[in-house]
Amino acid sequence: MSFYEKLKFTEEGLIPAIIQDSSSKRVLMMAWMNRDSIQKTIETGKTHFWSRSRKKFWMKGEESGHVQKVRDIAFDCDGDVLLIQVEQTGAACHEGYQSCFFRSVNDTGEFHITEPQLQNPEEIYRKKT
Amino acid sequence: MSFYEKLKFTEEGLIPAIIQDSSSKRVLMMAWMNRDSIQKTIETGKTHFWSRSRKKFWMKGEESGHVQKVRDIAFDCDGDVLLIQVEQTGAACHEGYQSCFFRSVNDTGEFHITEPQLQNPEEIYRKKT
Repeated sequence: MSFYEKLKFTEEGLIPAIIQDSSSKRVLMMAWMNRDSIQKTIETGKTHFWSRSRKKFWMKGEESGHVQKVRDIAFDCDGDVLLIQVEQTGAACHEGYQSCFFRSVNDTGEFHITEPQLQNPEEIYRKKT
Repeated sequence: MSFYEKLKFTEEGLIPAIIQDSSSKRVLMMAWMNRDSIQKTIETGKTHFWSRSRKKFWMKGEESGHVQKVRDIAFDCDGDVLLIQVEQTGAACHEGYQSCFFRSVNDTGEFHITEPQLQNPEEIYRKKT
């Protein structure tokens, strides 16, 4: 049976994809996929998503070069979340951190940054002249 | 600054929470939280969620005993996803697997089970007489 038959998409045809570093096991980011971006991810071996804000299909790293090479695609018991193991090139976060989850919360609800910023975001997304 | 001010909830007042085992780094599940369940999670040190299907507040493990003791709460750059590190008691998945992501996909879109079933679901949720 194809795994597509097991998946449950939202009304907009989307499913969240958790991206995990296959070596360090750090959770890097979560983004949304539609069926086309899942197919493209499987075909090319590189993660493709659907941007809800930009209403646009995109490949991770298409601008930054920080591509994600797919090592494994898993899905959960309810079929409504994907978990994708990747080899991450460079920082996964557009703010220059290895992971998008670079801030943690304490008991009082205050937060602090838990990892070094690897790159200045301006260096990642150089303005094209 | 309180981290609540950094969070972006959906129109239904929800935010997805990725649950990761703090020792093995296995991603165990994803579920949805509202502001009340986040506060309860911080106050009690045990994960609480909002069930979209049952429209109900629930503590993970309230029926199965498979509670999750919180070790860290992080949030992503966009403030629209939580990543929670936990000590998991027993299987995280209601189907008796350690992780809800117990199935992986191959290049042709077929899937296979990647881990042993630790418990029969009927054993986890015994009918109360």
